[in-house]
Parts: sequence; structure tokens; C-alpha cells
Amino acid sequence: MSAPDPDRGRVPDLDLSSDVVALTRALVDIPSESGDERPLADAVEAALRALPHLTVERIGNSVVARTDLGRPQRAVLAGHLDTVPAAGNLPSVLRDDRVHGLGACDMKGGVAVALRLAVTVPAPTRDLTYVFYECEEVEGDRNGLHRIAAERPELIEDADLAVLMEPSDAGIEAGCQGVLSADIVVRGERAHTARAWMGTNAAHLAAPVLQRLADHTSERVVIDGLEYREGLSAVAVRAGVAGNVVPDECVITVNSRFAPSRSPEEAEAYVRKLFPEYEVRVTEAVPGALPGLDRITDLVAALGATPRPKLGWTDVARFSSLGVPALNYGPGDPTLAHTAGEYVPVAHLRECEERLRRWLR
Amino acid sequence: MSAPDPDRGRVPDLDLSSDVVALTRALVDIPSESGDERPLADAVEAALRALPHLTVERIGNSVVARTDLGRPQRAVLAGHLDTVPAAGNLPSVLRDDRVHGLGACDMKGGVAVALRLAVTVPAPTRDLTYVFYECEEVEGDRNGLHRIAAERPELIEDADLAVLMEPSDAGIEAGCQGVLSADIVVRGERAHTARAWMGTNAAHLAAPVLQRLADHTSERVVIDGLEYREGLSAVAVRAGVAGNVVPDECVITVNSRFAPSRSPEEAEAYVRKLFPEYEVRVTEAVPGALPGLDRITDLVAALGATPRPKLGWTDVARFSSLGVPALNYGPGDPTLAHTAGEYVPVAHLRECEERLRRWLR
Repeated sequence: MSAPDPDRGRVPDLDLSSDVVALTRALVDIPSESGDERPLADAVEAALRALPHLTVERIGNSVVARTDLGRPQRAVLAGHLDTVPAAGNLPSVLRDDRVHGLGACDMKGGVAVALRLAVTVPAPTRDLTYVFYECEEVEGDRNGLHRIAAERPELIEDADLAVLMEPSDAGIEAGCQGVLSADIVVRGERAHTARAWMGTNAAHLAAPVLQRLADHTSERVVIDGLEYREGLSAVAVRAGVAGNVVPDECVITVNSRFAPSRSPEEAEAYVRKLFPEYEVRVTEAVPGALPGLDRITDLVAALGATPRPKLGWTDVARFSSLGVPALNYGPGDPTLAHTAGEYVPVAHLRECEERLRRWLR
Repeated sequence: MSAPDPDRGRVPDLDLSSDVVALTRALVDIPSESGDERPLADAVEAALRALPHLTVERIGNSVVARTDLGRPQRAVLAGHLDTVPAAGNLPSVLRDDRVHGLGACDMKGGVAVALRLAVTVPAPTRDLTYVFYECEEVEGDRNGLHRIAAERPELIEDADLAVLMEPSDAGIEAGCQGVLSADIVVRGERAHTARAWMGTNAAHLAAPVLQRLADHTSERVVIDGLEYREGLSAVAVRAGVAGNVVPDECVITVNSRFAPSRSPEEAEAYVRKLFPEYEVRVTEAVPGALPGLDRITDLVAALGATPRPKLGWTDVARFSSLGVPALNYGPGDPTLAHTAGEYVPVAHLRECEERLRRWLR
């Protein structure tokens, strides 16, 4: 279609006074695949600017809105605006007390809860910083939270705690593990397979590397009563020159998930010590986030859930690296994220909204 | 250039009465990359048709020329016309008593020797079948010898022996080993690496496969006094779904080189027995060629070289599968084949021509 679009540039309406279910559906129905968040960011920005108790800032397609009531404590409520690409799951559908549709679970339900709090709690018991950000589903250097932390850290680093409203089955997932990726390089010497003995087969030499990984027992680290179970996995093995050539290189990519009490440097040293006789190339190393439960006891009590350890890496680690303890708490089953059939239960939406409001009033 | 080419369709001249060095250079100077052998095949066909003692047949871009003298024995002299792609090594250069240029070694030097015999030995002591064929350097189903064996087997299967004039340092390389390629499939179960214990890592499970290959001792099989040293090599290892996923499959491709006394079926059974607990997918299995030295004692005596075993697979196996014992004998160092700097020593050209002529007169 090449005809001019009369809606081009028009900001979609978001009615924050509507019920959390209707609001979730309205958010789902404004498509916002990573990189194309502008219409949704415009709508969120416009809706928040209409609230006199908030100071609103725009950074790229991320929106930050802050109360400034001089409270002794400040909390961040954060959610990303973007989704993975659509998979035949637009527009939203309400069925069986669930909102179905792209991003319903990950994580427009959580965004709806936060927006409802923004409009219904004008004078919270602690100051609030709402962060609605872009590009969470793509590479880290495009991540809106990363950009805010780099360009406008003052907007978020003065908080005492952060709630990242990623789907967590309306339970508390505290902290997160760190991630290290590294290539272990096994070298040999090429030869024609008809004269294999003239070479040294790097694939054959890789056997002890893989066996060491198979035999490896990862630790279970308990922090604030939460058990973080570590892991060290080969995620890729690559060798091969041609069908008649003894390969001279075999690269094993390992992925380490390490407890948030360890630094990336410690995780790297651990892998190097496990494979002292091979070249180890670290390709990624990011710290986890400590649960910091001792600093958020009142929040945990208000949410009425027993904290669980978060094993995957999430953006809570970005807050943690700014010195802000953070947890995941949001509506939706995290295992439905990125599935075509994703949905968020209405009961989760209402429970999360109600419990957070109780904490803030 | 889009102007009409006045030479289009013209058959290049080949003067078979010229010296073997000049003839090698003339052959090199008619480009014949695999698939583009027509001009060279035309030239060879025209030159051979001018010889009244030969009956010439054309099959695709392959040329077969036979004497029919009623001799008690018939021998094939065969060489492929095609080359790998040019690498800045055209036209030919004569320097330091070597002919340099694309295909000089592999194997226009050998073709030149055969053409010189065709013109200089009109009444050989055994009947001769000259085979100059296309597409040896590419996939086997395009191979000209394969096509002749399939479409016109009577042209070659009545021979008692075959000399394939591939570069062999002017020595005798007898028989060749068989080749078997197989994928060994190791299966596991996917999981997110943050919960690696919920899956089964196929890459880790591949360790014993690679270790078994590392520990494997291949046999040395002696046939007609020649030692064929077998080999079993991993030539590729592939595993990997994504950087945060425990892989559910690891495929190890093995390449077996087996003695010509074994059948492909025996080679396959051997690999299956070595890896009984894994899926084994055979992707290629071709027999080798027995040296058959007892049937070619006079040829060996005439060539004055001690036969060596051929370890790589060559087209001698195609003759062997037709019941025709075959050997490699030709000018040039085989390790220079497919190199930009390939050349053939003038001394090799002259020696091969002289020794074969002695055998045929």
C-alpha cells in the first residue's frame, strides 16, 4: 500500500483509567516489535505527561516518569515496551479469563500494572521512578535500560530498590545469575584422511574437554536463603575443514551460569583453571545480581510471596550493577514468553496490581 | 566484450607430432576447467581421428580411441581432460626444465604422454584403449569415466588392465583404498542453560565417541606385498542450537579409508560395531581397488619402478569395479596437484613416454 496514511504520526490513545485487563489489551494492540516502539512509546509518554504528579523524560523510545515527594525511599517500577516479532497473534483476545496476544505475557501485562499504579497512586509512600524502555529483546547495546544507565544514570541510580515487572507467575524472583561465554580452542594439524597419521586430529583431541564438562559438578550457592544452582554447558562444538581432511581445530563454546556472589572475573578464572592446557577465549562475561532481600523486606512482605532464585539472566543485573537491589515480579508464566500462544491470566494482572498498590499506599 | 567471436566453434589445433614438452604446453594452453572441456575434447578428438589405426568415439566431452589389432591382451591408457579453476597460472611457462601452468601436473602431462603414444605406436604389442575424459575434478556422477562405464561399458570393460596416468612421480601406485563416510548421531535433550540439569547435553555425551576414535588403532593390510594403512578420522563435529541452549544433538562425521580387500559393506559393519549404541548414517561408501600386481607383472617390469600402495581414492577403483586391474602411473608430483604453482618435470614426461613405449613395442 503506497497511499498516504492519514494516521501517520498520530499518537495512539491510551486510557489509563481503564481496567488493567482493558489496558493490557490496548497495549498489546499497539504493535511494538523491537526497533519499532515509537508509537507505543509516544502513547505511554502522552498518557504519563497528563499526570501532574509525574515528571516525564524521554530517552530514545524509552520513557521515565518520576514522583518527587521527598520520601525517604525511592523505588523503580520497570518494564520493557518491545516484543519479539508477531506470530499470527495479533490483535489481542480475551478468552477463558486470559488475555492472549503478542507480548501479553512478556511483558505488556506488567507494563499495564505499572501504568495503573502510576495513575491510581498519585502520592505513594515512597517516591517512584517508572521506567518503560525499548529494545529488551535484542542485543544488549540497544537495550533502553542500558542507554538510560549510560546517558542519564541520575534518573535511576538514586533508587533504593527496583521491581522489574517481567513475568514471574506473580511470584518474587530475586537476583539473577551471571553469564560467561567462552570458546575453548583445541588445536591439531591438518592432513589428508588417506594419510591421517601424518596429522593430529583436533576433533579427537576434544574428547577430554567434553568429558571434563560431562563430569563437572556445578555448585549450589545459597544467598539470603535462596539456592542458585550453577551450570557449565557446552553449547556448540565446531570442527571440520572438508570431508577428506583431518581437522586442525575444534572449538567448544561453553556457557557458564554463575551465582551472583561471584564476579565475572572469578567465573573466568574458574573456567581457565578447569581447562589449563587449552586456549580459552572469553566472548561474554556479565555479572549477576545479588538478591539483596535484607534491603527489601517490606516489599517482600507486601507481595506475600516466598522469594525464589532467578536462574536466567535478566535486566535486574543492570540495576544491581548501579548498586540498586532488584527483583522480578510480574504477571504471566515466564515459560510462555516468546511463544505464539502466550497469554497473561487476568487473576495475575489483578493480584499484581492490588499487592503493589497495597505496598505503595 | 559482446562482439562476435570469430574463433567461436573453431577447433583448436593439436600437433601430436610435436615433442611431449611442447604438447603438454599446448594442452595446458587450451583451458578446460571441469564443465568447460568442449574445446579441448574437440581438439583431442580431431587429432585422434586423423590417425587411421584408431577407432574414435565421443561420449559427452570424453573421447575414446581404440586399436583393433586382434592382440591377446588389451590395455587402457586413461587421463582426464579437466582441471580445477585457474589460479593465475595460465598460460604455460617452461622454466628450470619444468612445465608450469594449470593442469601441467594434474594431469595434462599424463595426457600428453598418452597422446604421444597414440601417434607414435600405431601397432602396439597389445591392443590399446585410450580414454580422455571429462569432469574428474567434480562430483562423481558427472565423471566422464563413470558415464562411459554406465552408457558404453563395452568400450572399456574388455581390457585386461588399465593405466591411469594421474601424477605419481613417474612411479607405480597400485590399487587404492575404499572410502566410507558416516555420521554418528548423539542425542540429548534441550534445556535452557540456566537450568542445564533439566536437559541432557548431547555435546557432553559425544566425548566417548571422540575418545573412541582417538584410541582407535587402524590396521595395516598387506596385499601383493603392498601395505595399505587404514584410517578412521572424525572430519567434522557439529553441535549447537543457540548460545543459551543445551544442545540436543551432536553429529560426528567420520571418514574411513579401508584396504581394497574389504568391501564397503564390511567397512560399514566395522564402524557400526565400533559405535553400537549410536545412530550411524552412512552417507558414502565406495570400494577400493585391489592392486592385482600378479596380472600386470610385465607392465611393472617395463616401467622399472617398485609399486607403492595408493592410499587416496582414485578412478582406478572404477576400473577395478569393472573387473579391470588398474594402477596409477604418470609424470608429476601428486602433492602439487591443485596448487597454483603446479608443474611437471620434463624428465618425468620423457621417462613416462619412453618406458610405456618400450612396453608397447
